[in-house]
Amino acid sequence: MNTVTQHLPRQSPLHALLAPENIAVIGASADPTKRGYKAMLGLVKGGYRGAVYPVNPKTASILGIKAWPSIAEVPTALALALICTPAATVPGLIAECGRRGVKGVIILASGFGEMGAEGARLEQEMLAQARAFGVRLIGPNTSGVFNLHHRFNLLALDHIKAGDIGVVSQSGNMLLSLALEAEHNGEVGFSTYVGPGNQSDIGFNDYLRYLGEDEHTRVATLYVEGFSDGRAFLQTAREVSAVKPVVVYKSGSTAQGQKSASSHTGALAGSYPMTVDLLRQAGVNVVQYSDDILPVAEGLGRLQHAPGKRVAVIADGGGQATIAADRLTEAGLALATLSEETRAMLETALFAQASSVNPVDVAGSSDAKPSLLATCMEIVEADPGVDSVLLVGMFGGYSQRFAESLLGDEMRGAEAMVELANASSKPVVVYSLYAPVKPPALRRLREAGVPVYASIEKAVRVLAELGTRGEYLARGEQTAPAPAVASATGQALIQHARAQGRDLLEPEAKALLAEHGINVPRERMVRDASELAEVAQAFAGTPVAMKVVSPDISHKSDAGGVVLGLEGEAALANAYAEIMRSAHAYNARARIEGVLVTPMAAKGVEVIVGLMRDPTFGPVLMFGLGGVLVEVLEDVAFRALPLSRQDAAGMLDQLKAGKVLDGVRGAAGVDKPAIIELLLGVSRLMEAYPVIAELDLNPVIAYPDGYAVVDARIILERAE
Amino acid sequence: MNTVTQHLPRQSPLHALLAPENIAVIGASADPTKRGYKAMLGLVKGGYRGAVYPVNPKTASILGIKAWPSIAEVPTALALALICTPAATVPGLIAECGRRGVKGVIILASGFGEMGAEGARLEQEMLAQARAFGVRLIGPNTSGVFNLHHRFNLLALDHIKAGDIGVVSQSGNMLLSLALEAEHNGEVGFSTYVGPGNQSDIGFNDYLRYLGEDEHTRVATLYVEGFSDGRAFLQTAREVSAVKPVVVYKSGSTAQGQKSASSHTGALAGSYPMTVDLLRQAGVNVVQYSDDILPVAEGLGRLQHAPGKRVAVIADGGGQATIAADRLTEAGLALATLSEETRAMLETALFAQASSVNPVDVAGSSDAKPSLLATCMEIVEADPGVDSVLLVGMFGGYSQRFAESLLGDEMRGAEAMVELANASSKPVVVYSLYAPVKPPALRRLREAGVPVYASIEKAVRVLAELGTRGEYLARGEQTAPAPAVASATGQALIQHARAQGRDLLEPEAKALLAEHGINVPRERMVRDASELAEVAQAFAGTPVAMKVVSPDISHKSDAGGVVLGLEGEAALANAYAEIMRSAHAYNARARIEGVLVTPMAAKGVEVIVGLMRDPTFGPVLMFGLGGVLVEVLEDVAFRALPLSRQDAAGMLDQLKAGKVLDGVRGAAGVDKPAIIELLLGVSRLMEAYPVIAELDLNPVIAYPDGYAVVDARIILERAE
Repeated sequence: MNTVTQHLPRQSPLHALLAPENIAVIGASADPTKRGYKAMLGLVKGGYRGAVYPVNPKTASILGIKAWPSIAEVPTALALALICTPAATVPGLIAECGRRGVKGVIILASGFGEMGAEGARLEQEMLAQARAFGVRLIGPNTSGVFNLHHRFNLLALDHIKAGDIGVVSQSGNMLLSLALEAEHNGEVGFSTYVGPGNQSDIGFNDYLRYLGEDEHTRVATLYVEGFSDGRAFLQTAREVSAVKPVVVYKSGSTAQGQKSASSHTGALAGSYPMTVDLLRQAGVNVVQYSDDILPVAEGLGRLQHAPGKRVAVIADGGGQATIAADRLTEAGLALATLSEETRAMLETALFAQASSVNPVDVAGSSDAKPSLLATCMEIVEADPGVDSVLLVGMFGGYSQRFAESLLGDEMRGAEAMVELANASSKPVVVYSLYAPVKPPALRRLREAGVPVYASIEKAVRVLAELGTRGEYLARGEQTAPAPAVASATGQALIQHARAQGRDLLEPEAKALLAEHGINVPRERMVRDASELAEVAQAFAGTPVAMKVVSPDISHKSDAGGVVLGLEGEAALANAYAEIMRSAHAYNARARIEGVLVTPMAAKGVEVIVGLMRDPTFGPVLMFGLGGVLVEVLEDVAFRALPLSRQDAAGMLDQLKAGKVLDGVRGAAGVDKPAIIELLLGVSRLMEAYPVIAELDLNPVIAYPDGYAVVDARIILERAE
Repeated sequence: MNTVTQHLPRQSPLHALLAPENIAVIGASADPTKRGYKAMLGLVKGGYRGAVYPVNPKTASILGIKAWPSIAEVPTALALALICTPAATVPGLIAECGRRGVKGVIILASGFGEMGAEGARLEQEMLAQARAFGVRLIGPNTSGVFNLHHRFNLLALDHIKAGDIGVVSQSGNMLLSLALEAEHNGEVGFSTYVGPGNQSDIGFNDYLRYLGEDEHTRVATLYVEGFSDGRAFLQTAREVSAVKPVVVYKSGSTAQGQKSASSHTGALAGSYPMTVDLLRQAGVNVVQYSDDILPVAEGLGRLQHAPGKRVAVIADGGGQATIAADRLTEAGLALATLSEETRAMLETALFAQASSVNPVDVAGSSDAKPSLLATCMEIVEADPGVDSVLLVGMFGGYSQRFAESLLGDEMRGAEAMVELANASSKPVVVYSLYAPVKPPALRRLREAGVPVYASIEKAVRVLAELGTRGEYLARGEQTAPAPAVASATGQALIQHARAQGRDLLEPEAKALLAEHGINVPRERMVRDASELAEVAQAFAGTPVAMKVVSPDISHKSDAGGVVLGLEGEAALANAYAEIMRSAHAYNARARIEGVLVTPMAAKGVEVIVGLMRDPTFGPVLMFGLGGVLVEVLEDVAFRALPLSRQDAAGMLDQLKAGKVLDGVRGAAGVDKPAIIELLLGVSRLMEAYPVIAELDLNPVIAYPDGYAVVDARIILERAE
């Protein structure tokens, strides 16, 4: 078990706010249905060790604690104030707090930016007061906070344990759901929770950074509806995921969900597949199902990461062994190949009918001696070909199912598993069909930090995330190539186009690509029919395509502006005349710059490369296979810039139909290093010229040796 | 709630065996670690009402019940015997039972066919004895049986309730896992369980049929490692699924899992995607994750089916509303569009900030009045555009989270939900984050038959399966077109080829297709160069392809046997000579029948049609998109024969890249009715000629108007 935890250096102002020396509760109430009561109750029941100052002019005391008529009258210097009163009162109260030197305020009320123009105005006023007095704000519209290791709990949740899962959730119900699941589990606990609310002042990224620094948090777990500053989030996620796991559930995976999400939170939800790719690029463990959040957080919090994805399975029944093998394979994990030595040791330990091939099925060998399962786990754990160990079956239930006399041996088995897990750097995970009834051996495992799941599917999901995180960490420091430097030629090309209020023409786009080391075909721009003889000569022996070049014609084929497969001067001259005629017929006022003559691309694998500036995440690269089917299947990969070489390689590996790049039906594979260079090249270009809004290479034809950029489009930011 | 249950007419011999008047336990034991003890304990603790006769020569009584030294000495006529003794004793004991007139025997021992040749011999001997005496056998190697409505339980499971889920499981641990999950749920119960074991006599299909007939079973739930007679299984599944839901989990979804499964059971596991398609064709609800089995069985058992897939969601928080919307959409369900009238009623009932658009978010309206959620459910249930109702959020937890004083209203809400569910033919399903802690309102719902889930994902999976089953039932009686009748011409073609010990040549295959109404291109077989002039004339103006025809050359392209895009007599003559030369060079001894001249197919959408005889499921049709990418993605659909028109149409709809058939990138859609006719046509052909082993049309090019069969292969069964 990876018991050492790393944390980012302590810089966040939130440490003081979330472990305050004392707290004023403004709007504290004796009415049990009010949040001003709940918060008081949470502080008192939770055993908060600081002083609590209820502020309420209408009452003398709450829960036996003296109340004060106003914040001004509280006799001590205050570290934090919780405001439970309605929105309209908040700006004034913040000023009051500011005057008393309060450093942080938590605001529960809704009725701000999420409620239209009037609310937005109120939120601005509140923020202005906070800035004027140097007060930091959590909320408004927060579902609350807790920091259980400081016994600071404004949520009054029952039965919640202090533990290693830190949570930031844009849904209060989601936190509640995780807390109830944890209560049911019995051994899972939390460090800090924050409901970020409207994030007027302190934002999502600040909370994530805090969890990265917090010494009690071993896994940061986020429920996200939308990112307000996605680019900064990715940067913070990258820093935090370097030291501890970051688990994100992003809601709005479908258009329907996004619609529903935006009607509730007003947060901008980007394309889900893109968001997932960018989060993973930053080392985040993305979970796709809400009921995976807690199991994955539990597993990553406890076990941190696996050295790799080769899993050894010990099973005491064929059925569950098969299910585990199926799920492991589907999740991209591998069944570890056990060494001859390991198998021989297993065979010595087990009955003849057992299978020593992974998944190992003890086939009855443990019926009278459940601790034998621990022995098998020790044997496979020692195999260098094994990265993690999964026990599946009825462990914990032997003494219930077979005979009570087995309890002693079963507890010895649990103890051996705990020792193994503590001594090993390889994760040890248990699925037991007895997990729902929590027998003593399983309680012992959980209490000692060995995760026990009631579903093979969840156990495998956890192993997959552990393996993914291990692989991410193993990639080590990633360095993106230095951005390209804009060249004078490139600047001139762009200035020229901008001066004319247009984007780059195809030959200009290709010239800019060539200027920065990207292979473009040997092409010729023909501006007058008189040049055709010489051009035909230049391409002698090579069939060519001719394409109209005009800032006013973007659908060249529709305009009759493309003719393919031409050879010889006569053919070129005919095509030239035809293109000119068609283009004028299509749009009489179109400015025609000329006709581009380009060699016909040989057959290969069609791919697409795109770059855009996402409003949330900034510059993003897209790579995918081209053609009709992939358009239908939307089989593309995304990465945020700057792009490392590993990022680029990962895009090729990620495609569902990626096998096509390796060659199918006897075709040769494509030149992957050249494609990777291309991706790195366009990314550097995008960084060198901030005025480029979009870049599209579609299609690029990839060959066993190099590639051909068949069409290129570069869209510029509109000048002011 | 669909409270009426239908059952198949009572025919199965298992009714008597699984509700026996009395039972002898041969090998009954007082040792708590023995199954002969477990079974006795199960009978006694379970309250079995028949007489129990322990048979054991070494003891006077077991659990206070008089024991008998041998079966011969038991003083009564016996309905059933349970044999708990080792394999070697079984054949003799069955003979003894037979002599005493016992009608059925359950055999626990392993060590038969699954253990090699010696075991197989023993199993044959056992079966011969059973047949000789007319004794029916459950097992051997069975994990046991129970029939809880008759208090007949050989498994001695604690806390198991009688209910409506019937289970057949090839893994005893899986049954145990379901039982423990049900125990934890508290309200889910079982009717009959059977572990089929080696199925020496009574097989899987017999058990399924029994569950279809059993009046206490409202859902048949099967864990399957392999099908020994898949074709018969599909037939039985079709009959049972017509009256009640059939839920199947098929293990071995991956090659790794299949390997692991076959090493444990020896059962033949076919291709997983094919198996899933064929099961669904027969009306089975296939679940893909083992932790979905019980939730889906519970939901289908209680609610049977939904009228359709349009779900109305009532939520008391934005987070869970969004998650529900995402999962519903991903599962192929639709968020119902609520009528103006429904929305107006909701708006009257709710606060201004609530959203009356589905998913309905009450946004705090229910905080002080949880029964308002029931009111909202009543409102949306009445909307004719709604097929099922899903409540998500914290219902059941209001009185715990907000104030105990809400308990009365919360229980009234639960009661209203129960009444709604009972009165409605639309399923009502609840997700609550309080499900793990089982508060009173949720206990009331479960006890009254309203399923409550602790995971939105599981709740949605259940709604999806209810909708799928509803759609299946709505398709009604499906009639496959009458099989084609073999024609004299067709028979002659096949006889001719068989006489030569070969499969059909391409032109013969196409002739057979044409004979049975399938459009094949106008082609010509050229056997001598002298025919080329006339053939060139016949195809004047149309480019053609030429392909070698030889029983000895199956990879025509590799042999240089294909030339494309030819026009005019000279080109044909050149190509003919070239093909002959290449073919001889490729295989000097190849019998060359001639060269097929066929018009070049215009561009269209490439599809593939295949038929094969699966060793388990019999004749199976495959349909998919052609081309490189789909080969990589394996995007194909399977159906067992006979094929109904609905089956054929379903294959087109099922493809992941099926949009291509509707036309993408401005292309016209293909002629789906023609493709459906083609699928029906080849299926009928396969049935008309049982000697056809395999049929492959690859590719077929589909057009907006018709299709072209570009290549056809028909493989014949080898003559004895």
